[in-house]
Amino acid sequence: MRDFSEDHRWLSINTATVRKSRGVDLPLPEIIDACARRGIRAISPWRDQVAAAGLDTISAQVKAHGLELSGYCRGGMFPAVDAGGLAAARDDNRRAVDEARELDAKCLVLVVGGLPGALAGKAAHKDIARSRAQVRDGIAELLDYSRTVRMPLAIEPLHPMYAADRACVNTMEQALDICDELDPGRSGALGVAVDVYHVWWDPKLQQQIARAGRDRLLAFHVCDWLTPTADLLNDRGMMGDGVIDIPRIRGWMEAQGFAGYSEVEIFSTANWWRRDHGEVLDTCIQRHQAVV
Amino acid sequence: MRDFSEDHRWLSINTATVRKSRGVDLPLPEIIDACARRGIRAISPWRDQVAAAGLDTISAQVKAHGLELSGYCRGGMFPAVDAGGLAAARDDNRRAVDEARELDAKCLVLVVGGLPGALAGKAAHKDIARSRAQVRDGIAELLDYSRTVRMPLAIEPLHPMYAADRACVNTMEQALDICDELDPGRSGALGVAVDVYHVWWDPKLQQQIARAGRDRLLAFHVCDWLTPTADLLNDRGMMGDGVIDIPRIRGWMEAQGFAGYSEVEIFSTANWWRRDHGEVLDTCIQRHQAVV
Repeated sequence: MRDFSEDHRWLSINTATVRKSRGVDLPLPEIIDACARRGIRAISPWRDQVAAAGLDTISAQVKAHGLELSGYCRGGMFPAVDAGGLAAARDDNRRAVDEARELDAKCLVLVVGGLPGALAGKAAHKDIARSRAQVRDGIAELLDYSRTVRMPLAIEPLHPMYAADRACVNTMEQALDICDELDPGRSGALGVAVDVYHVWWDPKLQQQIARAGRDRLLAFHVCDWLTPTADLLNDRGMMGDGVIDIPRIRGWMEAQGFAGYSEVEIFSTANWWRRDHGEVLDTCIQRHQAVV
Repeated sequence: MRDFSEDHRWLSINTATVRKSRGVDLPLPEIIDACARRGIRAISPWRDQVAAAGLDTISAQVKAHGLELSGYCRGGMFPAVDAGGLAAARDDNRRAVDEARELDAKCLVLVVGGLPGALAGKAAHKDIARSRAQVRDGIAELLDYSRTVRMPLAIEPLHPMYAADRACVNTMEQALDICDELDPGRSGALGVAVDVYHVWWDPKLQQQIARAGRDRLLAFHVCDWLTPTADLLNDRGMMGDGVIDIPRIRGWMEAQGFAGYSEVEIFSTANWWRRDHGEVLDTCIQRHQAVV
């Protein structure tokens, strides 16, 4: 297992972690500069942040700093109530692949979607099996496209508490079943993003990380699970402040040969987003060395 | 599948659902009377509510009304940091079995516990595998006792969002692995409590209900998953107000021969606990007939 204690060569910052500084939206160019100033070598930006600054601007800035992208957030949200909705999702996902390609991301992370309308508080139906079938079909179709531009797709199993509104793929086993079906040759075009927040509880986690294998372990996201957790979405903890045994899980990843970044992804309305982003980034570096 | 639309013969009320009336604690004897007045045939009381009123009092009241207990809430909380803590849990669980026996409950529901101290916000360690081993050992030991008084134990897999603080058994598959190991003969002494709130998201739910089979499906709990969910513990929805396809899951249960109660268990600080308990019980009856 790699020794992270001496530097932060393998730290990546998911830019949602410093989406706000002192409670105010922080533009992506400022986030990137702040990371670069600290010798952070990789980021994973969100599409809305890129769009706000302009893809060309961000692409140039990333290249100027020599930054890598440990991933690009995010594609997905496949389920819909009708053909028009499915087509819109397909087109939007192709654009996400193109953006990821332009930014030379390691992978496009897929948050696959749940019950149509649930995120807005009004689910159109209760048939999660139907959503799961649409997700499978959507990934299959996107894969045909993403292969042509060599952009790996990383299915991110989300915590079961997001099954209704954000992602109906909720375990590593389920994600890998999709990978097995759609990419039986394990070409590298399709794999998983392992976020400890979503999967730490899973009694089959070690087994499924082993099943995934190096070629399908496309990303590793870290933060922590707080007790108590005050909000289902935006109360993630800084590494070390919660109950997740992160080094153990990283050990399982690395036992398969994973040698990529540990990407910090924290959504925290009441704590970290209220602090200055410089303090947050410095804390990420410190915790990366101490507890990841 | 049984037709529930004409009456509420198979409705049970978990007494936590009306733990408060208009925001004020409601004593268990009043809850029982209110259920009996409405022709509700079964309840599932919580130990703290029974203790507050006195076991003998409740036992006599339940018998006087001819009420059944679809379950007794709850045993479990097995993990501890030392031998003294484990022994205390063992002793307390034996008392829970005795109380369930006195009340002639169908089963003692087990909420198995998570990381010691996490419920109080300070986990003693992060080794969930250790907690899971203690849970297995604790159930094994309790089973030796519960068999002697013929009180079935129902392991309740809790939603993964409770893995740290309430229960580190989080899927039906995991619960049934324990059942297979500790009661390979499927004697009826050990099974599962299926609460739709905890398991509705599971892609393997239908498969695992079939695996459980009639002799291990000891209880069926209903409520609903709201979008959004405002609180991890106390924002459960009334059946029909959320996204869970309850009849589909009940159908899977009944396909295995399950013929017991649908037990309504709703924790709801901001909504149902603020209403008058009579309104809540009437709503449970109406929804039981319409959407369960």
